[in-house]
Amino acid sequence: MSRRPTAAILVTGSEILLGRTQDRNSGTLARSLDANGIRVERIVAVDDREEHLRAALADLVDGGYDLIITSGGLGPTHDDRTVSIIADVTGLALQLDEGALAEITAIVTGYAAQRNVPVEQLLPGARKQAMVPVGAHVISPAGTAPGLIVPGATTIVVLPGPPTELAEVWHRALEHAAMRDLLGAQLERRVLRIWSTPESTVARVFDELGGDQHGTETSICATRLEVEVVIRFAPAARAAGTALADGLLDAFGDAVYAEDDLPVEARVVQGLEQRGLTVACAESCTAGMVAARLAAVPGASNVLRGGIVAYANDVKIAQVGVPAATIAEYGAVSAEVALALAEGVREVLQSDLGIGVTGVAGPGGGSDQKPVGLVHVAVVGPHGTRQVLERSFPGDREAVRTNSALTSLHLVRLLLQDERLSLDV
Amino acid sequence: MSRRPTAAILVTGSEILLGRTQDRNSGTLARSLDANGIRVERIVAVDDREEHLRAALADLVDGGYDLIITSGGLGPTHDDRTVSIIADVTGLALQLDEGALAEITAIVTGYAAQRNVPVEQLLPGARKQAMVPVGAHVISPAGTAPGLIVPGATTIVVLPGPPTELAEVWHRALEHAAMRDLLGAQLERRVLRIWSTPESTVARVFDELGGDQHGTETSICATRLEVEVVIRFAPAARAAGTALADGLLDAFGDAVYAEDDLPVEARVVQGLEQRGLTVACAESCTAGMVAARLAAVPGASNVLRGGIVAYANDVKIAQVGVPAATIAEYGAVSAEVALALAEGVREVLQSDLGIGVTGVAGPGGGSDQKPVGLVHVAVVGPHGTRQVLERSFPGDREAVRTNSALTSLHLVRLLLQDERLSLDV
Repeated sequence: MSRRPTAAILVTGSEILLGRTQDRNSGTLARSLDANGIRVERIVAVDDREEHLRAALADLVDGGYDLIITSGGLGPTHDDRTVSIIADVTGLALQLDEGALAEITAIVTGYAAQRNVPVEQLLPGARKQAMVPVGAHVISPAGTAPGLIVPGATTIVVLPGPPTELAEVWHRALEHAAMRDLLGAQLERRVLRIWSTPESTVARVFDELGGDQHGTETSICATRLEVEVVIRFAPAARAAGTALADGLLDAFGDAVYAEDDLPVEARVVQGLEQRGLTVACAESCTAGMVAARLAAVPGASNVLRGGIVAYANDVKIAQVGVPAATIAEYGAVSAEVALALAEGVREVLQSDLGIGVTGVAGPGGGSDQKPVGLVHVAVVGPHGTRQVLERSFPGDREAVRTNSALTSLHLVRLLLQDERLSLDV
Repeated sequence: MSRRPTAAILVTGSEILLGRTQDRNSGTLARSLDANGIRVERIVAVDDREEHLRAALADLVDGGYDLIITSGGLGPTHDDRTVSIIADVTGLALQLDEGALAEITAIVTGYAAQRNVPVEQLLPGARKQAMVPVGAHVISPAGTAPGLIVPGATTIVVLPGPPTELAEVWHRALEHAAMRDLLGAQLERRVLRIWSTPESTVARVFDELGGDQHGTETSICATRLEVEVVIRFAPAARAAGTALADGLLDAFGDAVYAEDDLPVEARVVQGLEQRGLTVACAESCTAGMVAARLAAVPGASNVLRGGIVAYANDVKIAQVGVPAATIAEYGAVSAEVALALAEGVREVLQSDLGIGVTGVAGPGGGSDQKPVGLVHVAVVGPHGTRQVLERSFPGDREAVRTNSALTSLHLVRLLLQDERLSLDV
């Protein structure tokens, strides 16, 4: 097809409607669909009541999307009604799928043995889960619930609700021959992530470059301290897409810190590992967030020595070696203390790089000279390399702390560009 | 009204549909609506295109909800179309609201002075933002965009998109006389949060107690390591609602750790502060998450001394004083090392309580004896008080680490129940 296929996502779950749980499935699916060239036009969440699910599904089927993906309602009990409602709404009869029944029966038999439950209790549920609309393709389960691809003017993909099961079954569905036509229009993407630049500046430069051309489709999205530009284009528009991306690269130069989806902490761990360097953190207001983000990267143990959460001033002095006089003269929230934290933790934990963070996270503790949101961050390395930064972050305690941690990771990234730390030295 | 009012939430934003940003506004509104006795039946997200917004809004108006809340699309430019589409769909004409114009003009005049921008550039936008459907009530802006309450068979509340603005304007809308009828049916709630108990066990006991009675409505929701039960009831059903809550309290006793919405770290900080105790953390696999969660609580500086992220073994030894022989004999992931971390950090940072966490977060580093997900957590306090726990968490690196941090906070909570730490000693 020449136009991009469209999709809607339908998630079910009372907890979401009560605001007790955040829906993660729609984000997983939306990212994957975008990467596969499919445009998501609507995301709907409803609770588990039959009439609500039926009404929402009927609205989406009327919406004329090429693809509808549902999440949830595939369990073994009568409360799990997604499949029967889809059969109703599409006018397809349900029939027992013998292959699915065999597969589910094998799974629940193993499960019954493990848990010492009579398997007979589980067989009616297995049979219920093996009832599928006529013509539907069964996708092997990751838990006990198989997924379905229901072909038609609108293709309906039916996925289980638990996020890890959903991701696995969706991955299998993407490989299925019945999805091939929808995915035929796969687009190329160029991603540019630009640090510490206003979204309006990026948008202005984008306009000056001529904006989207026929065949390109760009999104510009500001998240925490960065602007992410994604340029999508069909192979026929590769020249235009590439020109746009290269134009932005020229305009923003070093501020473009990534051309992929990796978080900054992964780049930092990778950069340290390539250079054979280690790092340690001394954190006051962030209180462990920087170390925790580094440790979130698999394999971080190759580069992360550890850290000191120096919340109380006497801990800064006794554990990190910040001179008491520096705190007395400049205050705990100062460039001098940030540097002393970075230098001290580098020495105490015997790492190549040291990170120091200190700031006023709020809501209390601010003053005229040092208002809530003021943060000092320092990174020091071998050969006299260093990066220091002062920032005033808006927002609440959580925002100030998260942005401080993020800024310190970007400072490490910048430090690693110093040629004195290069691979060749 | 005797039945509960119903609501739908409509959020706009291309980033959400692309899976690049998680929508937080719908959760904020859903929690607030639930607390105000209003049942949210559908949440819809659409991108910023006019035809998509119009179609989604028309579907919701046809849905017969008592209340529709929209978020986003209120900016000063022609791309922000929410208000004009609402006027179209409801058949109401737009007119200039002089009061809103005066208020927005004052705001942008201050803004222009601050940024050194000619105010004339901003006045057309202010005028656009002051155009409201006939009969709508204007809610004062938190940024520049006022909110609206559009009365009718379906009340439509129109809110700005930025999360902090949305929360503030929504709070004002709730106070408005035009909302009084919808909020008249406010329900009472009993919240029980049960730690470390399977959801199926809670559901079974709930059924044994007779389940929901006429006038009560209960949700049982499992999140990380806890099951949250919320029982909602009208004043007339207070006896039934209270009996249910008390029955669950009897059945689960000490496992019920909260009857409010406070996160466990806030209870811990509160409990420490009441007893005049301080805490410090030595963290391996969590690498700062425990300290960071404690520091997320405003006022944590009264109780949190700091912490040591002891990622490398030699940091555990040199900085926290874990005996090298203990690591050699039992391995870094062991109850013995967790205890030595807790005891060591308590001594080094001179705190009353010490927390130690060590585990195999994965994906690498697991073995037959010590598989990925194995975690040891210890908390020690004065007078020989201590809590230790071994757990095997399923899930990925992030899940293992988050659940380890959460478990250590619960162990502190349990330790604080020890009468040797009571206020009276």
